[in-house]
Amino acid sequence: MSLRYLTARIAQQIDEELMSTAGAFSLDQLMELAGLACAQTLAAVYHKDKYPRVLVCCGPGNQGGDGLVAARHLGMFGYKPTVFVPKPGSKDIYKRLQIQCDNMRIRTVDGAAFDNALSSSDVILDAIFGFSFKGPMRPPFDSVISKLTKSGLPIVSVDIPSGWDVEQGNVDGTGLNPDVLVSLTAPKEGARLFHGRHFLGGRFVPTTIAEKFELNLPLYPGVEQIVELPPQQKL
Amino acid sequence: MSLRYLTARIAQQIDEELMSTAGAFSLDQLMELAGLACAQTLAAVYHKDKYPRVLVCCGPGNQGGDGLVAARHLGMFGYKPTVFVPKPGSKDIYKRLQIQCDNMRIRTVDGAAFDNALSSSDVILDAIFGFSFKGPMRPPFDSVISKLTKSGLPIVSVDIPSGWDVEQGNVDGTGLNPDVLVSLTAPKEGARLFHGRHFLGGRFVPTTIAEKFELNLPLYPGVEQIVELPPQQKL
Repeated sequence: MSLRYLTARIAQQIDEELMSTAGAFSLDQLMELAGLACAQTLAAVYHKDKYPRVLVCCGPGNQGGDGLVAARHLGMFGYKPTVFVPKPGSKDIYKRLQIQCDNMRIRTVDGAAFDNALSSSDVILDAIFGFSFKGPMRPPFDSVISKLTKSGLPIVSVDIPSGWDVEQGNVDGTGLNPDVLVSLTAPKEGARLFHGRHFLGGRFVPTTIAEKFELNLPLYPGVEQIVELPPQQKL
Repeated sequence: MSLRYLTARIAQQIDEELMSTAGAFSLDQLMELAGLACAQTLAAVYHKDKYPRVLVCCGPGNQGGDGLVAARHLGMFGYKPTVFVPKPGSKDIYKRLQIQCDNMRIRTVDGAAFDNALSSSDVILDAIFGFSFKGPMRPPFDSVISKLTKSGLPIVSVDIPSGWDVEQGNVDGTGLNPDVLVSLTAPKEGARLFHGRHFLGGRFVPTTIAEKFELNLPLYPGVEQIVELPPQQKL
């Protein structure tokens, strides 16, 4: 039985089920484990001695929240993260996660300081858009994505590379081309078109939901929050 | 600068500060990371191939919540945990964490099935009492603790061995004598009298709070949620 790749609709449905009365998870819990998995993925590929300065790019939605959690854990792991928030989220949890980063003395920059922050970074964590993204990209995100690509820095994308159609991939070519992808819960359809190093995170999917949605998740090793998937064959 | 050992009062104060407007953490977040650290500690000492059946004993307070989170992660790690709840907690989060265990098909037993569950376990995770415990122990906990001791099974205690005075240790001798202790946030005064393998978990204390309370926390290795402390010298 092979690992299931999710449509945007099924991904949304699983998220809702996890946080329903039956699933009983809070957003805080899921975001904490998802963000930890993102931080662990970056650390697994880009060692802090060689890539200490991580630019964590956070969108305004839940994906950005994962990014803020990841930034905090990267700070705990000994990296020097900088958070870039082109447009802050409005949810209370987003604000709390931002304060938690502030308390780790992690710097947050907005659009004005972005160029500078980008040129003094070693690696990018892309937590801009998640599985609810629908194109086309609007300002300021179009120019942010374009600058991230032009920087030539290694990029780790969360769940789906920003700018990609969740199911069709980088259809109009304006999305990121990350080196590493960390899928959360289960990979999305579009990730079939990703050929870099691919990790799976979100070691919180209970047996009941994994069975109901026939996810066929792989075994995670030891006490890790991530598992590396075999690379996709190019067709 | 040596690691600070906390009085019950200071431990309480740090907890409140973490969840204050300034600290901005939710109980869900802290419990998730604390429980993960407990599960990682047990896994670091008692391998799942040799000690698959973990009896996770959960008190009615926040410590029991850590235990429920740990049970779920132990299930994820491939152990066969059984949750023992002598007296369920009344908080909403406690009920949600219980459902999350149910969804992992983790069995929960109450007092009636305790003896049976104990005799078919390989190792105990003691999450009965935490740093807000004040003796003497009341039923049914006195008999539970006594049976756990008599079982002769290896015991991993969370934060402070159950039945110990948080600052004075196992003063009247009715507390547990665990093999392993996982202190959360920072060790409590009573842990100075513990001579087994001692781990620290709770890799969430922000720089601001670590500095304010002069915790002098050790460096955690890699992406781990726990760090082993040097053994306490017997005086």
